[in-house]
Amino acid sequence: MTDQADPSLSASAAPRASGRRGRSARKERRQSGSGQIFAPYLSRNIPVLDYLSDEGCEKIEAQTDRILAEIGLEFRDDPEVLQIWKEAGAEVSGERVRFPKGMLQELVKTAPAQFTQHARNPARNVEIGGNNTVFAPVYGPPFVTDLDQGRRYGTIEDFRNFVKLAYISPFLHHSGGTVCEPVDLPVNKRHFDMVYSHLKYSDKPFMGSVTAPERAEDSVKMAQIAFGEDFVDQNCVMIQLINANSPLVFDGTMLGALKVYARANQACIVSPFILAGAMSPVTVAGTLSQVLAEALAGCALTQLLRPGAPVVFGAFVSSISMQSGAPTFGSPEGTLLLNGAAKLARRMGLPYRSGGSFTASKLPDAQAAQESAHTITATVQAGVNFCLHSAGWLEGGLCSSYEKFILDADQLGMMHVLARGIDLSDEAMAMDALEEVGPGGHFLGAEHTQRNFESAFYRSSIADNNSYEQWLADGQMDAAKRANAIWKQQLQEYTGPDIDPGIDEALLSFMAERKASFPDSNV
Amino acid sequence: MTDQADPSLSASAAPRASGRRGRSARKERRQSGSGQIFAPYLSRNIPVLDYLSDEGCEKIEAQTDRILAEIGLEFRDDPEVLQIWKEAGAEVSGERVRFPKGMLQELVKTAPAQFTQHARNPARNVEIGGNNTVFAPVYGPPFVTDLDQGRRYGTIEDFRNFVKLAYISPFLHHSGGTVCEPVDLPVNKRHFDMVYSHLKYSDKPFMGSVTAPERAEDSVKMAQIAFGEDFVDQNCVMIQLINANSPLVFDGTMLGALKVYARANQACIVSPFILAGAMSPVTVAGTLSQVLAEALAGCALTQLLRPGAPVVFGAFVSSISMQSGAPTFGSPEGTLLLNGAAKLARRMGLPYRSGGSFTASKLPDAQAAQESAHTITATVQAGVNFCLHSAGWLEGGLCSSYEKFILDADQLGMMHVLARGIDLSDEAMAMDALEEVGPGGHFLGAEHTQRNFESAFYRSSIADNNSYEQWLADGQMDAAKRANAIWKQQLQEYTGPDIDPGIDEALLSFMAERKASFPDSNV
Repeated sequence: MTDQADPSLSASAAPRASGRRGRSARKERRQSGSGQIFAPYLSRNIPVLDYLSDEGCEKIEAQTDRILAEIGLEFRDDPEVLQIWKEAGAEVSGERVRFPKGMLQELVKTAPAQFTQHARNPARNVEIGGNNTVFAPVYGPPFVTDLDQGRRYGTIEDFRNFVKLAYISPFLHHSGGTVCEPVDLPVNKRHFDMVYSHLKYSDKPFMGSVTAPERAEDSVKMAQIAFGEDFVDQNCVMIQLINANSPLVFDGTMLGALKVYARANQACIVSPFILAGAMSPVTVAGTLSQVLAEALAGCALTQLLRPGAPVVFGAFVSSISMQSGAPTFGSPEGTLLLNGAAKLARRMGLPYRSGGSFTASKLPDAQAAQESAHTITATVQAGVNFCLHSAGWLEGGLCSSYEKFILDADQLGMMHVLARGIDLSDEAMAMDALEEVGPGGHFLGAEHTQRNFESAFYRSSIADNNSYEQWLADGQMDAAKRANAIWKQQLQEYTGPDIDPGIDEALLSFMAERKASFPDSNV
Repeated sequence: MTDQADPSLSASAAPRASGRRGRSARKERRQSGSGQIFAPYLSRNIPVLDYLSDEGCEKIEAQTDRILAEIGLEFRDDPEVLQIWKEAGAEVSGERVRFPKGMLQELVKTAPAQFTQHARNPARNVEIGGNNTVFAPVYGPPFVTDLDQGRRYGTIEDFRNFVKLAYISPFLHHSGGTVCEPVDLPVNKRHFDMVYSHLKYSDKPFMGSVTAPERAEDSVKMAQIAFGEDFVDQNCVMIQLINANSPLVFDGTMLGALKVYARANQACIVSPFILAGAMSPVTVAGTLSQVLAEALAGCALTQLLRPGAPVVFGAFVSSISMQSGAPTFGSPEGTLLLNGAAKLARRMGLPYRSGGSFTASKLPDAQAAQESAHTITATVQAGVNFCLHSAGWLEGGLCSSYEKFILDADQLGMMHVLARGIDLSDEAMAMDALEEVGPGGHFLGAEHTQRNFESAFYRSSIADNNSYEQWLADGQMDAAKRANAIWKQQLQEYTGPDIDPGIDEALLSFMAERKASFPDSNV
């Protein structure tokens, strides 16, 4: 016999319900993804994979020390931050700041290695750090796309839809932030509707606005309405994306948001945003030394603002095509970068953000799936603690895709199973099954199989494993078409979480009052 | 700023040729995959990833000892093999053979941990074992498919085409075996044309026929014509796929082929062919204990036939859908099985075969790409030494796809880069680039970038990383459509390796004589 899957197995004695009720039951399971897995966050039971040795880390860290001491970073349009650095012992010259060896490493020691981000529903609280991985959806795209309507600017309706889809998926732990830009709302007011949508249509944890310090303040105020002022001061209820303007620059906008959140004891993810070859050297090792410098500087700053404030070492790292200059995703270099930065973050004792379901593809095709599979595998294997862009990302982050969201969420389910590792319990050893079946037998009917088949294997909501003939009869759909049917049904069946009517009312009044207090603007 | 790739980079100062000559040069690079990588086989410079601990292995090995001693295996329709086992000290009862503890582990000690498979072109010789991975194409499908003609039975023309495509790809190290079934030729004679096609249209190493002992003899004879009788007796020039008939059975056909090849000093890959839940317990650990029992028994048998004959511990392992009974691929359980068996093989001191670019999908869509990406990553990370089905596999192995072949080969290129790991040389550290560019600068024009950009990043032949607008202008193609254009151009441009006219003539006469000596048959 050759290595071919026998399609006759499809018609075999597999444990299955039959007839109309059976099909309906299977349909339900299919739509809910994989009912057997639910956890508020993923806890890895597999070892971390390191592509970088300890000696390699030491070499990179030594270079980072030189970058920090000799080249330094620029902190632009924020005299207060320059003053803070000066007082802390850095060498400040104009907007350039240079750091004595070891200064930043010492400062980040007050940051927690792991912290809880509280959700409106305490059962959805996530642990950020340690052996845990939190999956959050795509962040930032101005466009959205689906197979029916094609590509267009995102709206607040699309925004709510993605919040709902993330709420429904058992494999997304987090509601995220800018799941798409609601371009139909004024730039200077859309943050109200975004934060409100996360609080109203989901009860998973979420992210606040960072596009201006006053929008960060508004986000904190809305969180205070939802969680209480004292609670917010003592607990992390929001996590925010603070990108460095690589190479070696933090701009005034990001610094403004960082100051608001750090002082409010809310988590910042300090993320170098790097496409290697353009914003960093064209090599993995060189890029890693820059990532470490940028992340360390931003993380240390949060600790000067409020020692002990939660902060995450971030690294958005990929490469560009050296032929066209276009960003590339899912590349082997991207995997090595993501993985190397993870080890550097661990050595600093900080939680780590990276990865996602990245692709440069313009549609949910083989390129998109391949690049996303490589990135999300690398994410889990590197021990990423907070994974933004876990689902829905298309077109280098310019577009949130409904179908891709469903494809990615299914893949996140697989990552949950992979991260469990190999069960070595007596039940998993299955000696009784081997004894019962013996040479030439069939395991489908074995008692051990009957006892375990419900939870045995991950059930993909997307994969078509049927015979070619059955697939033809089912309409010859590709994975994207199947995903299209799933998201539409999920949105149709969505029933949101309850929200305290008093809190809902208070949020709406706050928003109405604030919105009325200044004119609309699109900057 | 948010985590979005800036598409304006595409139009930026990336080092690029311009005008018609530039485009043509880029086109050539694109079509040749990634010109900068060529090696006769992949040598891994990254650590092996183990999902199974040493303690876990010991637990599984102890259960395998019990399976071998208490349950045993059946060796069907081959009294000679039963006699060989008896003489070696096993307990034989009918066709059931039980093994005293440690007997098989002792027997496999004479097998080489690594061996050379010689190719017609010595520059293409591959090393099987150690830190090396050899990629061979899909094996066994009766059907072929492409976007133009759709799915149909394979022919000898398709067979030759896949041999040519594997020859052209710098990322496939091996010509493989039954790249598709040439269904237009009689079953009992097609092995002549298959072996001849590998020898004529490629100079990479290949696989012999296993579907009957006399076809194995014919394969050996053809190899003797090509390489010389003495050389074949002393060196491995063919590698063969010997599947166990799981659970715990070897059938007469496979045993017949195994005997021919082992006695001829040619390599057998002894592969349990297992879809867990059907042919093995519904759990990873239970399945692994069975895999080890089957592989050990087959590998040990080769050593009784000819001590020192090259043999490979194989494991074709995936799962089935417990809802429909259909085989599933690219599942997390498949990854854990593949990975666990790798460590068991290493502990036996044997080269390991597993993995591939598996999928149950019926077309080269997102499902196909995602499942294949997961499997091929798992393959490289587990330290697989011989990887059959590296390119072209579709539909659970029932179909060889032209487009999938190109998509997979591109992915194999990425695996070569990943396996290199992180370069920590001074040039890779790029301190001079960081010094030259400084905060807020751009690395595209840096001297270090100019020096390194040609070899910097893997160049995908498939990925479209351009802007949405450029992609629209280029015809809105998905990855499968781009792959379609590539394979057609590759076959058009194919120029085969030279073959000694005397050898070619001798092969053709041998085939003609043998074919005339018995009637056609389709069994």
